[in-house]
Amino acid sequence: MTTTAPRWVYAFAEGDGRNKLLLGGKGANLCEMTRIGLNVPPGFVITTEACLAYLGDAGRNLPAGLLDTARTEMASLERQTGKRFGGGDDPLLVSVRSGSAMSMPGMMDTILNLGLNETTLAALIRHTGNERFGYDAWRRFIQLFGKVALGVPDALFDEQFETVKSRVGVKQDVMLGADELREIGERFLQVVQRHTGQAFPSDPYEQLEIAIKAVFNSWTGKRAIDYRREFKITPAMANGTAVNVVAMVYGNMGNDSATGVGFTRSPATGENQLYGEYLTNAQGEDVVAGIRTPKPIGDLATEMPGLYVQLVELRNRLERHYREVQDFEFTIERGTLFCLQTRNGKMNAAARVRTAVEMHEEGLLSREEAITRVDPAHLEQMLFPRLDPQHKSQPLATGLPASPGAASGQAVFDADRAETLGKQGTKVILVREETKPEDIHGFFASQGILTSRGGKTSHAAVVARGMGKPCVAGAEGIHVDVAMRVAFVGDQVIKEGDVVTIDGSTGRVFRGEVPTVEADFSAALVKLLGWADQHARLGVRANADTPQDAARALRYGAKGIGLCRTERMFNAADRLPIVVDMIVAETPADRRAALDRLLPIQRADFVGIFRGMAPHPVTIRLLDPPIHEFLPTERQLEDDIARLHDLRGAARGMEVLTDAARFAPDTLIPATLRDFGETRLIDTIIARKEAILRKARALREVNPMLGHRGVRLGITYPEIYTMQIRAVLEAAADCVRSGVEVHPEIMVPQVCTAQELNLVRDYMSAVQKQVELTYGVQVPCRFGTMVEVVRACMRAENLAEVAEFFSFGTNDLTQATFSFSREDAENKFLPMYNERGILQDNPFEVLDVKGVGRLMALAVEWGRRSRPGLKVGICGEHGGHPASIIFCDSIGLDYVSCSAPRVPIARLAAAQAAIGSAGVTDKAA
Amino acid sequence: MTTTAPRWVYAFAEGDGRNKLLLGGKGANLCEMTRIGLNVPPGFVITTEACLAYLGDAGRNLPAGLLDTARTEMASLERQTGKRFGGGDDPLLVSVRSGSAMSMPGMMDTILNLGLNETTLAALIRHTGNERFGYDAWRRFIQLFGKVALGVPDALFDEQFETVKSRVGVKQDVMLGADELREIGERFLQVVQRHTGQAFPSDPYEQLEIAIKAVFNSWTGKRAIDYRREFKITPAMANGTAVNVVAMVYGNMGNDSATGVGFTRSPATGENQLYGEYLTNAQGEDVVAGIRTPKPIGDLATEMPGLYVQLVELRNRLERHYREVQDFEFTIERGTLFCLQTRNGKMNAAARVRTAVEMHEEGLLSREEAITRVDPAHLEQMLFPRLDPQHKSQPLATGLPASPGAASGQAVFDADRAETLGKQGTKVILVREETKPEDIHGFFASQGILTSRGGKTSHAAVVARGMGKPCVAGAEGIHVDVAMRVAFVGDQVIKEGDVVTIDGSTGRVFRGEVPTVEADFSAALVKLLGWADQHARLGVRANADTPQDAARALRYGAKGIGLCRTERMFNAADRLPIVVDMIVAETPADRRAALDRLLPIQRADFVGIFRGMAPHPVTIRLLDPPIHEFLPTERQLEDDIARLHDLRGAARGMEVLTDAARFAPDTLIPATLRDFGETRLIDTIIARKEAILRKARALREVNPMLGHRGVRLGITYPEIYTMQIRAVLEAAADCVRSGVEVHPEIMVPQVCTAQELNLVRDYMSAVQKQVELTYGVQVPCRFGTMVEVVRACMRAENLAEVAEFFSFGTNDLTQATFSFSREDAENKFLPMYNERGILQDNPFEVLDVKGVGRLMALAVEWGRRSRPGLKVGICGEHGGHPASIIFCDSIGLDYVSCSAPRVPIARLAAAQAAIGSAGVTDKAA
Repeated sequence: MTTTAPRWVYAFAEGDGRNKLLLGGKGANLCEMTRIGLNVPPGFVITTEACLAYLGDAGRNLPAGLLDTARTEMASLERQTGKRFGGGDDPLLVSVRSGSAMSMPGMMDTILNLGLNETTLAALIRHTGNERFGYDAWRRFIQLFGKVALGVPDALFDEQFETVKSRVGVKQDVMLGADELREIGERFLQVVQRHTGQAFPSDPYEQLEIAIKAVFNSWTGKRAIDYRREFKITPAMANGTAVNVVAMVYGNMGNDSATGVGFTRSPATGENQLYGEYLTNAQGEDVVAGIRTPKPIGDLATEMPGLYVQLVELRNRLERHYREVQDFEFTIERGTLFCLQTRNGKMNAAARVRTAVEMHEEGLLSREEAITRVDPAHLEQMLFPRLDPQHKSQPLATGLPASPGAASGQAVFDADRAETLGKQGTKVILVREETKPEDIHGFFASQGILTSRGGKTSHAAVVARGMGKPCVAGAEGIHVDVAMRVAFVGDQVIKEGDVVTIDGSTGRVFRGEVPTVEADFSAALVKLLGWADQHARLGVRANADTPQDAARALRYGAKGIGLCRTERMFNAADRLPIVVDMIVAETPADRRAALDRLLPIQRADFVGIFRGMAPHPVTIRLLDPPIHEFLPTERQLEDDIARLHDLRGAARGMEVLTDAARFAPDTLIPATLRDFGETRLIDTIIARKEAILRKARALREVNPMLGHRGVRLGITYPEIYTMQIRAVLEAAADCVRSGVEVHPEIMVPQVCTAQELNLVRDYMSAVQKQVELTYGVQVPCRFGTMVEVVRACMRAENLAEVAEFFSFGTNDLTQATFSFSREDAENKFLPMYNERGILQDNPFEVLDVKGVGRLMALAVEWGRRSRPGLKVGICGEHGGHPASIIFCDSIGLDYVSCSAPRVPIARLAAAQAAIGSAGVTDKAA
Repeated sequence: MTTTAPRWVYAFAEGDGRNKLLLGGKGANLCEMTRIGLNVPPGFVITTEACLAYLGDAGRNLPAGLLDTARTEMASLERQTGKRFGGGDDPLLVSVRSGSAMSMPGMMDTILNLGLNETTLAALIRHTGNERFGYDAWRRFIQLFGKVALGVPDALFDEQFETVKSRVGVKQDVMLGADELREIGERFLQVVQRHTGQAFPSDPYEQLEIAIKAVFNSWTGKRAIDYRREFKITPAMANGTAVNVVAMVYGNMGNDSATGVGFTRSPATGENQLYGEYLTNAQGEDVVAGIRTPKPIGDLATEMPGLYVQLVELRNRLERHYREVQDFEFTIERGTLFCLQTRNGKMNAAARVRTAVEMHEEGLLSREEAITRVDPAHLEQMLFPRLDPQHKSQPLATGLPASPGAASGQAVFDADRAETLGKQGTKVILVREETKPEDIHGFFASQGILTSRGGKTSHAAVVARGMGKPCVAGAEGIHVDVAMRVAFVGDQVIKEGDVVTIDGSTGRVFRGEVPTVEADFSAALVKLLGWADQHARLGVRANADTPQDAARALRYGAKGIGLCRTERMFNAADRLPIVVDMIVAETPADRRAALDRLLPIQRADFVGIFRGMAPHPVTIRLLDPPIHEFLPTERQLEDDIARLHDLRGAARGMEVLTDAARFAPDTLIPATLRDFGETRLIDTIIARKEAILRKARALREVNPMLGHRGVRLGITYPEIYTMQIRAVLEAAADCVRSGVEVHPEIMVPQVCTAQELNLVRDYMSAVQKQVELTYGVQVPCRFGTMVEVVRACMRAENLAEVAEFFSFGTNDLTQATFSFSREDAENKFLPMYNERGILQDNPFEVLDVKGVGRLMALAVEWGRRSRPGLKVGICGEHGGHPASIIFCDSIGLDYVSCSAPRVPIARLAAAQAAIGSAGVTDKAA
């Protein structure tokens, strides 16, 4: 208590401006500003350690010595201001406010004008000669202190206030005179007396002690605890709150006084000019309260030209010192400018990018600093269309934010209708209970997708993310009746053609068109990303499945394609029937016949992608999902067959024919059959459906995620992989012959042993020889493996003997590592796991560094043991997530691959990783 | 070719008897026997290296110098025998036979009597004075040489043989005279001439060269290649075949000659006495051919007493030298005993155990050697009832060998009927398309289970294995019609009550009763296992779910229970309705009410298990499977509801009541309801069914293996785990109070992070305090985790901070490591993977040391970093598999746990692991 007692109190001139953990953010800043010579009202900080000592004490007693030191500091304030606390001609009043290391807005309100009592009030009125000012300050103090420090409900004060106002007959506070304000002050004292059973404390030091304790207590209040949990603020980030005691200054002492807020640059656009607003003869509260309309900061140049110059000088000093855009508060008291507070300015992404770039160009920041100033995740705002922030619409329903971006369009309830309208140029939103592969043409034609079932990994979500289209999934309140062409949301009805707006970034759904703001690929962003590319060690590629995707990826700066999912090509409406033929085939010959029809289609796709992406590498993943995913569900087939049997019984001529035809793609009905009439036609369709149903039953799996898929299929039906490899190599040969540089990379999914790779490589070698012979050119092609099965990690040395590259499929790897089926986990227990802190994040969104990441690090190390130059990338969704990218950099990956709109995010994150800074600043601020 | 040429040929007296890789097994043995002074006919070995040199040469030419050396060796044979090869008065004949390092039965037939031609045949006849003997030897030689060395089909020889026999009018070869045999020999020469287009080689050295090449060629013949693939014989195990050239000796030279085979001990019982049979005046072939009935070896003692003494001496020397039971061949030629061959004797498990034990007691073997002499897997034979090996029945159908053992009984097609008959003492086999948890009472009542659907991990298989009852699963040809009470197998019908026999060790199903041989826990086995326990480092525990299981496990020598699956207790017929109540409960209060009813039941079970197992530890796993597994399928419920609606329409009085009652367990129908009549009753059942259906739909999962189960359930519904923990601790307290020593260990399934463990440990601590207070005793309890999720391995350090023990659940861990759903993999692609050598074994049967094992080794190492004394075990099915047990020992596990009948296997394997020998000898022999 004597020699070892910590120091509880620091005057602003003494505190270390960098020690936010000890002094709180606000306190440290006040110290820092004082230290660099800005005109800050004098004051002192009571440390967060004092707070913890107070809270740790069972009786919540202030640590010994604290109050004595505070008195000493108050004496110092008296000397500096020439005023006296609790007495004298010119009484010293102070503000008391909380402040922890992390900004926690609204944790505890500020108490202003502390030190007022009957005596000091009289002195204040005498000294200022302004009775109204005095009583106004008094009633404000009683109410704030009563509420904040004594816990008196605000409503009790408001009640008194309204009583007086209505008696006097005025509507606004400012119209009350000194007498009424005095009466209100007196009524407030009675309110406190009645509510607390004690008289309002009149001793200023007693007031100070109560206020300090109230601030400390607020650290363990419900509001603060909730906030810390919500924003994951740990004790290492902020532990306890400091108390700032500051001498009051007044912007409301006449027309030579004012108060205002400033931004060193525009938070809306980033423009490099002083920005802000102020009110003459007013207190800070008044600016916020919105009773008077503040004036733009520029007006001060004419109103108080000398002070405007001082303000600009203040702004310059702040930026030079903090090297970051500042959001500051100032007060002018009788011609003297005080700076009350400053903090890093919050800006939208565009402004942040622009200021970072310009501050580098002005020499304020190094390039590295400019790059690390922008939170990569923040860029999402700029890269996807978003709802106009000004809109006031109320959402009709809310689902999961499954694919970012906003879009409006006419609601349609099936993919065919979406395609018809879409081709006519109508903007549509595809609304379904859930989507299936056969809906894919509807995706292409729509602005966005809305489903009422399924999670972030549902078909709709995954496909929409791949296409970069907005998607709201699992909006549970919505029920779609396809036959009636309506959807129900509670008691509301959405008819086909009604316009809806979806916001895939928040999951909200609106009726009507909500204005949107377009994606914003500004010159500053282009410049910043250019710098980023120069610093990054990790390459950034895109996941892209079509020539269109590839073109877009290139625009977003991808240096190649890291994942081209060939099964996506299977899903297009003109191909799915052929794929179904292939699946239903009973002999390798029949299967090969179907594959022969697919070959030219896939080849043409690859030619388009290779040409679009040249000269960058394109990694093609061979067929991955279980083939039953390409078939309708068993129940759907059973229903169809039952309805077709009914139709057959009805026999209503051509009408039946038309009805029946809807059940099967036209390609399946030979023209000659139509001549035989509807019965024969229906029988043919029924037979087809039954064949599909038999196959669907035979293919049924208990756990499709862990079933007959990927390379297991490829080895069971070598003709499928062989066809795909042929399509890739023929497309490459075609490009080579016409002088286009190509670097195809063939990648095998779901590998668990090198034997699988050996077999597929044999297929590849055989096809490569044939193709080179036929086309008369050398066809370059690399061969690699997905690493998405845990065993692949354990066998990395052996896999790397065959594979020239690894690509981590962290979606599947995460499922296998946790034994979590993503769909089941996200629907059933993962939210609860996050809420209860069992897992900090959703591992399907944020790479689980401790588990999955440890496995990846082993695989990289072991793989490079047998192939030192092994190229390693990641193509799971995590490849576009900044923190995950930084981890990938740390374990020595060569590239990340993500969906096109995330490429800029990844480029920035990759640069930040290389620079060695997380760059994710003031996240919870 | 000169100085560096390898040595291609070794005389028996020169060869190294231990070098089987070079000399082949047979050749090495002949050298060895010669070396130790047994009377072996003189001969030499041409090495396997010569074979490889021959095969490696494109033209298949014998290596230079080989034939010269062979001639030198033949000259040596001539000296030793006093005979001449290809001439003289007493011509030397030799046998030529193949022999690789691994015994490969039937790879190439032996050629006897090589060296015969017109000249030597005449000399032989002259010298022996036995014309018939000469011609018989001659025709045998031509046929064998023709077939084996020249590739002439046997049928062509047989045709000639039959022609002569039918002309002469005799049925048996022995009835042919010298003339006929000569004629046959001549006809054979013509056969060879016709088929090969060349004359039969008459030059003995040409014969020898052709024979050597034929032996070498047989190494790459189809038969040999298939055999090596089938038994996984790698070049490291056997590479090429040697050729053994041995001077002929004749057991058919009169009544002072004989030939026979001997076992140094009885291969049937292991009894320590000479065993075997012989024929006087016969060749080895005749013993095998079964034309004359051989005499028991004991008869030799009276027939040729001197030679019997020599034979016993031979037997003693063989055993003393080889220290293992020998299976040997001998020939007596005119009063001289020759030993032609010896090898380790094949014995059944009982005989092997007995001989190992007795040979130790006789001082022939050390204890360690005795322990390693028995292949643990071999013990299966003794531990499960099996079909009498003498039976000749033809199987009706074949399925998967899902749970070992054999059983007969009346076929019944539903669990209720099985229970009824079973309680009456009737032996029944439960025959179902597939089984579900609600059939469990039928399992208890049945001798064995037969299903037509599902693999080795189907409900039937897993439950049957757990109970140690035989099970044949997935016998696809069988179709069960429960309503008609029949099953169809092809065109055959099995009616209820027809007796069937199943062999769960082979998967075969028989009509009628096939005699079985009971499990055989011999005194020798008990002794051997006792020694094993003294050597083993690994402890062996059993998986057991009931007091009965526990009692059995103790009889098999388990030192505790490593896995008690609490959900098995939920499945009993009297409990399932309560469990369903718990699942359907909409509020925690309702759920708790159901749990309150389960508590005393589970507690009683635990009391039984603890008392039975005292003082050994009992590890209890909290609820693991997804709870929808306790509900009927959605389709079943939909069907039930539809049929109940029909019944309701029918309204046929009491009959309906009875029909309806079948749809719901009686416990669900309050007696009062019956008074309201059938409609009300049916409505009640429908409502109940609909509630269950709603729940089943809500619980539906895409990948149940990776879904809402294990600790995820335990945290979602803390009341379930709390009830289970309470049941365990109250049972333990009850035991402690009555002086029974208990060591309960509570184990949490599906853990992926230490946070989960922390939560469950908190439940446990709370309950433990309450129970100790209530019962007034200290209740010991350890707390640990299953390690069956990959992430648990990656987080082993953290888990070990909370868990006092780890138990590897290698079934689930294997699924997650491979991303193979066991059911889907075994049905769809795993057999193909094994067939094509992509994976050597089924990783669900043989622990995948390279992948899963590597993960386990990391988890053990990392776990012990933070808790050095961490106890680690394994409780997956692999815990009972010998090779897997040896691996578990190598990575430092403390115990293995397996189903009760596998406990002796595990005890022996654990000892062998400690001794450091694989002990799995002559697997492919």
